[in-house]
Amino acid sequence: MSQTIRVGLAGVGTVGAGVLKILETNGDLIAARCGRRIAVTAVSARDRTKDRGIDLSGVAWEDDPRALAVRDDVDVVVEVMGGANGAALETVEAALGAGKDVVTANKALIATHGTRLATLAEDRGLALAFEAAVAGGIPVIKALKEGLAANRIDRVYGILNGTCNYILSDMETSGRAFELVLREAQALGYAEADPTFDVGGIDTAHKLAILAAVAFGMPVNFDAVHVEGIEQVSAEDIAFARELGYRIKLLGMARRRGDGVDQRVHPCMVPLGAPIADVDGVENAVVTEGDAVGRTILVGRGAGEGPTASAVVADLVDIARGLRLPVFGQPVGTLSDVAPIDIAERVGVYYLRLTVVDKPGVMAAITTTLARHEVSIDQMIQRGRAPGAAVPVVIITHETREAEMQAALAEISAFDTVREAPHLIRVVGS
Amino acid sequence: MSQTIRVGLAGVGTVGAGVLKILETNGDLIAARCGRRIAVTAVSARDRTKDRGIDLSGVAWEDDPRALAVRDDVDVVVEVMGGANGAALETVEAALGAGKDVVTANKALIATHGTRLATLAEDRGLALAFEAAVAGGIPVIKALKEGLAANRIDRVYGILNGTCNYILSDMETSGRAFELVLREAQALGYAEADPTFDVGGIDTAHKLAILAAVAFGMPVNFDAVHVEGIEQVSAEDIAFARELGYRIKLLGMARRRGDGVDQRVHPCMVPLGAPIADVDGVENAVVTEGDAVGRTILVGRGAGEGPTASAVVADLVDIARGLRLPVFGQPVGTLSDVAPIDIAERVGVYYLRLTVVDKPGVMAAITTTLARHEVSIDQMIQRGRAPGAAVPVVIITHETREAEMQAALAEISAFDTVREAPHLIRVVGS
Repeated sequence: MSQTIRVGLAGVGTVGAGVLKILETNGDLIAARCGRRIAVTAVSARDRTKDRGIDLSGVAWEDDPRALAVRDDVDVVVEVMGGANGAALETVEAALGAGKDVVTANKALIATHGTRLATLAEDRGLALAFEAAVAGGIPVIKALKEGLAANRIDRVYGILNGTCNYILSDMETSGRAFELVLREAQALGYAEADPTFDVGGIDTAHKLAILAAVAFGMPVNFDAVHVEGIEQVSAEDIAFARELGYRIKLLGMARRRGDGVDQRVHPCMVPLGAPIADVDGVENAVVTEGDAVGRTILVGRGAGEGPTASAVVADLVDIARGLRLPVFGQPVGTLSDVAPIDIAERVGVYYLRLTVVDKPGVMAAITTTLARHEVSIDQMIQRGRAPGAAVPVVIITHETREAEMQAALAEISAFDTVREAPHLIRVVGS
Repeated sequence: MSQTIRVGLAGVGTVGAGVLKILETNGDLIAARCGRRIAVTAVSARDRTKDRGIDLSGVAWEDDPRALAVRDDVDVVVEVMGGANGAALETVEAALGAGKDVVTANKALIATHGTRLATLAEDRGLALAFEAAVAGGIPVIKALKEGLAANRIDRVYGILNGTCNYILSDMETSGRAFELVLREAQALGYAEADPTFDVGGIDTAHKLAILAAVAFGMPVNFDAVHVEGIEQVSAEDIAFARELGYRIKLLGMARRRGDGVDQRVHPCMVPLGAPIADVDGVENAVVTEGDAVGRTILVGRGAGEGPTASAVVADLVDIARGLRLPVFGQPVGTLSDVAPIDIAERVGVYYLRLTVVDKPGVMAAITTTLARHEVSIDQMIQRGRAPGAAVPVVIITHETREAEMQAALAEISAFDTVREAPHLIRVVGS
């Protein structure tokens, strides 16, 4: 058996502790699979005195992760601190600069600095691996870079944020409002104290930008992702969705169209029976379409100690086995810049929920405005009569251009008979 | 860019033609991903004159695949002829003997001779790759060997044969009998002229034995797989299943229990809402349970030119990138023999359909016999009264030992009031 791979672990929070536990519990199994042992030789974390329920005796401690990254007794640095910049970025840069392979679970870091860091790694023949950054334990980066490497990938999309999926699933089951469910999710530890990154769609966008880079062979372009969160999804929308044969999911979607790529994160109406319509709670799902293989779907736990640590250790296993692939599946120098396609160019079906004052002429004004923008109506639900008071009107359109839809909506919003901001949710195919 | 990888293609049927097409269509993309080109330099097939719709000019032809396997201008041999023995086996042996890496789509070969061939390959430091042998285009072998390598895998199961899944889906939709649907599937090319391997469960068992070897780190043990096919599944069973909240699927299932491993292929009642209950038609699905990652589900096309060729080329990409892992994920010498667990030891729920003569005392005799074997009844459907004639009785049991269930069934079958052989289908959890 060859020499032990020595790991410096930067961050001993949930994921870091999970990595230590897996290497302890499955150490022999992993050694048999790699032909060598993987051992953590040094760690770094904010608070040295905190009880983490794991034995760190015999492991060196560094207060500064940047110092950990350059230690002579470290071959691979595992960065599980988080954050796009600051200590995480500096630790990864220091590690690559010192000739260490790097494994990270940090989607913000890769989505923001991935291309530059990949250049650093590839110039030195080092691994920069980030399976844990996307969809937790599901080996989706490996599937795209290796298992589906025979294919031109035309589309990749999925449910990439367990917090949002948990909230939406719970809202549907309980009929409760977003704020209430969010507060409970925070109490249960399923949502962060500051939930903006999750519920605002940023976390999904980070992951999508990484998936798109690997799938399409392009530099990570997080800024090109159109991002909307789930804050505006109401219990009413969820109930109407169910009635119309849909479920509401926050999807990250990237599609190649001609010379461009469309990257979007927003709530979607997914038809019941679609392969990801039933992916509930904290599960993630990634759907890939390749020219030879067709559609492939991967489902599993997208977050949490075990799943995320499983992905980190899988990357360590690759490194221990001597596998060092180009960071995004092909050398950074061969990635081709692809023009972003603006969401205004989307052509699709829309769900629209308006709250209107129930008086003569209101529907005529709305439908005339839609017609003028060539938005044609497939289904309309107007429920309850309450003359002079506000009632909901739900419209499902035929295929429409986003730009026209938005223009019509801007006009309709300005009507004094329309109360509340209109709710628009895009409908996706099966 | 390094030297081109030269492929000798043994077999130019559906899969072989698919490989040639992918290397043609996506050649540049694949070269960017591998850092070198993959080119077929020689082929071998039964009939040289057949028009395959692909350009084979500039490619050497060998009538004998064993001669192809040892050519100097071949680095990797792709075996896509099929068959557990004969030419396929001799070609793979010749290739490994001559120091060539081997990629095969041949599940019968790997299920039968996998361990011995792995030894041959590993002794010479060669790859013997078989992603295409299981679940077509779904990269499930890579997921088990690499993406989930941090985990102790406790269970792997799935829908592994598209022909059976197509037939069962069609029987459900159309309400037609097995023989009729099979005949149509043969006419459409979804089933072979001799369908025994598919509908008899052998093909699923080959794939399961391979999955179990990789998942549990044990030598392939095809002989230990309990195999039943779908020939006895009737339209009535499918209708009753639906009424009771189940769908019938042919599953291959392997589970580690203590020091043993249970490997089984048989029709199952899968509860509606279970992750694979909705996998229809020619799709395959593989579910894996790992101690850290939890449950992971992979779904995609399990057969056909594109998906199978996608997997073959993915293996070629691995080899072109220099990846040569132990054949079953850890060196053959470290695989540990695991005792097979007999199906008689299964504890679970059973669906039973009896055809009984409608006369006094029949039900008492059946239920008394079940009770004597400690089989307790959860649900019973007795439909229609036709005094003196045969009527169906459907029973869902509580958890029961297989051995007791079979003993009770043997007694009940012998009653002169019981017409037709009883139908037993095992119910699986969600």
